[in-house]
Amino acid sequence: MQAEIVSIGTELLLGEIDDTNATYLCRQLTGIGFDVERRQTVDDNRGRIVQVLQEARRRSDLIIITGGLGPTPDDLTREALAQVTGRPLHPDVAAEQRLQAFFAARGITPTTNNLKQCQVPRGGRLLDNGCGTAPGILLEHEGCIFIALPGPPPEMHQMMSNDVLPYLEDKVKEAEGQILYTRTLHLCDIGESSAAELLADILDNEGNPAVALYASPGQVRVRMSTKAGSQSAASRRLNRAEQDIRERLRAHVYGVDDETMEMAVGNALLAAGATLTVAESCTGGLIASRITDASGSSRYFLNGYVTYNNESKKRLLGVSEDVLEDYGAVSEECGRAMAEGARQDSGADYAVAVTGISGPTGATSDKPVGLVYIAVADEQGTVCEEHNWPGTRQQFKQRVAQMALNMVRKRVMGLV
Amino acid sequence: MQAEIVSIGTELLLGEIDDTNATYLCRQLTGIGFDVERRQTVDDNRGRIVQVLQEARRRSDLIIITGGLGPTPDDLTREALAQVTGRPLHPDVAAEQRLQAFFAARGITPTTNNLKQCQVPRGGRLLDNGCGTAPGILLEHEGCIFIALPGPPPEMHQMMSNDVLPYLEDKVKEAEGQILYTRTLHLCDIGESSAAELLADILDNEGNPAVALYASPGQVRVRMSTKAGSQSAASRRLNRAEQDIRERLRAHVYGVDDETMEMAVGNALLAAGATLTVAESCTGGLIASRITDASGSSRYFLNGYVTYNNESKKRLLGVSEDVLEDYGAVSEECGRAMAEGARQDSGADYAVAVTGISGPTGATSDKPVGLVYIAVADEQGTVCEEHNWPGTRQQFKQRVAQMALNMVRKRVMGLV
Repeated sequence: MQAEIVSIGTELLLGEIDDTNATYLCRQLTGIGFDVERRQTVDDNRGRIVQVLQEARRRSDLIIITGGLGPTPDDLTREALAQVTGRPLHPDVAAEQRLQAFFAARGITPTTNNLKQCQVPRGGRLLDNGCGTAPGILLEHEGCIFIALPGPPPEMHQMMSNDVLPYLEDKVKEAEGQILYTRTLHLCDIGESSAAELLADILDNEGNPAVALYASPGQVRVRMSTKAGSQSAASRRLNRAEQDIRERLRAHVYGVDDETMEMAVGNALLAAGATLTVAESCTGGLIASRITDASGSSRYFLNGYVTYNNESKKRLLGVSEDVLEDYGAVSEECGRAMAEGARQDSGADYAVAVTGISGPTGATSDKPVGLVYIAVADEQGTVCEEHNWPGTRQQFKQRVAQMALNMVRKRVMGLV
Repeated sequence: MQAEIVSIGTELLLGEIDDTNATYLCRQLTGIGFDVERRQTVDDNRGRIVQVLQEARRRSDLIIITGGLGPTPDDLTREALAQVTGRPLHPDVAAEQRLQAFFAARGITPTTNNLKQCQVPRGGRLLDNGCGTAPGILLEHEGCIFIALPGPPPEMHQMMSNDVLPYLEDKVKEAEGQILYTRTLHLCDIGESSAAELLADILDNEGNPAVALYASPGQVRVRMSTKAGSQSAASRRLNRAEQDIRERLRAHVYGVDDETMEMAVGNALLAAGATLTVAESCTGGLIASRITDASGSSRYFLNGYVTYNNESKKRLLGVSEDVLEDYGAVSEECGRAMAEGARQDSGADYAVAVTGISGPTGATSDKPVGLVYIAVADEQGTVCEEHNWPGTRQQFKQRVAQMALNMVRKRVMGLV
């Protein structure tokens, strides 16, 4: 089934906020088997909203609209929906009573504008808003489902989970007898083309589950999807495919679905009963910050050293003057010394250290912007990798942090 | 002039990433006086891309496309643009040579797919990519300007600043005799409604420059805009308005236009000839990472301490066992001791320290999730603030980091 998303709001077209609603809706709809081929964003202009809905209606089985359901005169979604379907608005008495009660509890008398929110096109129904005043609207009209949701993300998310997704899953099941189940594996330290080679026959096959490769800056993902009548039937197939893919990609697979790299590192450390410390120069604290993005990280993360100047590398990590003079701060020798010093000072089981040139200044004739050394020390010794990743300062920091975390993960899991 | 944005990429319609490019482009285009009334997102399907471009072309003077310029077969922007305008693709020899050199420097021979990136529709020109391999495309065709930019945000941003924005400013000036000049002031530690009260008469006036207030999660901005025939005429007006606004908002204004909080902190430290160190518990390295996001930060940032466990607070910062036992790690006493210990160990002029409960776990009966202490130590002594900001772990970290940086800025500038 074809779905299309229409985001309404002048603030979106002024670039004041990211349209995270559209991202969320695409993920949810794709997740249950809808094809989303188009998304449109339009300002608070009734003529343009009507035009966009008319175009979308010719193409799609489902149109989800966000925004424009508030009480002010520039909230026009309700009126546009009535116009496009030729179904006049009428008040929903039960919703009006709920709104009156909501305002009464706060000692306020609702205005005519507030009550406008309880109007619904003939034949449609209002969707209850658990955390705001604007109800949503659901309307089936001549083979097309229109769903209008409020713009504030928490209200929209709740309405989707409670009401809309179960309704849409039933629709998909009704139309196709089964729904789509997906699982995504996250990869690290492998390019899209190398992953494609290792999975060539799986990707070429029109197999079940279907397997596809996706790449976005700094990450590659494998997405498996299968249509099934039940979760358990889907899980059996997805488990089998996952096993096959993991056997080929091995250590490159670091996470499943919502599992981030920092969560994967945390899970590996928890499983090993081990602790971690970090010594950072060029990433300036980003690695430690990412580790502590994972809830519960205090169970394995002891502390971090952001040794930006040479003096702190010596004082806090015990890097010797000789190493700094003979090889410089951006060197394998310094990276190793930082990791070993951090491990010793903190008493952690694992220490990861990075030192590099994030640019745009700081390069020398033999050390270009993008050069970095990443070292991991543990009781078995110290490993160190050299990489060269030119790019912006932010790109460089992100990439180094991701690779450093991955080296820790692999080391803890005994994969290197 | 009317502008429209077309975002291309199946990953957007799968909901895998937010379309931050569209937000950025809307802000930039609105900033120089374009009206943006529509935005479209379409998957990597040539037929649909062509259709979307044909529709957009009928409505708009300018169409900016992002994505689909890479080397793989599903990168179709170039071909779609050639089809819509009826202008065949031909290779740009100079661009091919640059790409050959780029790959040669990395010891790689470019494939035919890579060279495809150097093709341009007849009459168009390629836009140089300072930090990637995909050039952009600029093409004027029958009164409509088509601009295709690469999807990775850093590449897109650089191309916009270096090449596209100056070109578009000239176009607007040509068409309207004057262009819109804007200046944005960034505020911290003040809500939208308080700022609105302080600026009430300026916001109500239909003055020149026009002044408007914008709020998005965690930030409030004041935007001034004026149409003028020259930068100098605009600057005079904007300077006058800025002075008036600064007199009312004082220390709440931390930055202008692209100036981030970390840049404002760096500028204040450089002006004072002073150095900084950071001791972080609940932010886990985020403050240090943000400070080092500013290029040149090694001139004033010495080092950071991510003292996540109590043991490291004692060992590295000299926080006493008594403080930890009597008041706990999340206390004003501990925050002050961390800042003072970091300042002493590092020898920095200023030290900022944070300790708090980022949640979702870790709360106690008298210390809720969201409680935080932020302390700044300098030669005059130590100041400490208590805040309580419930929210998600990430929101909390961001907010604490922003406020901690702002406290440093105000302290260094003698504003507190």
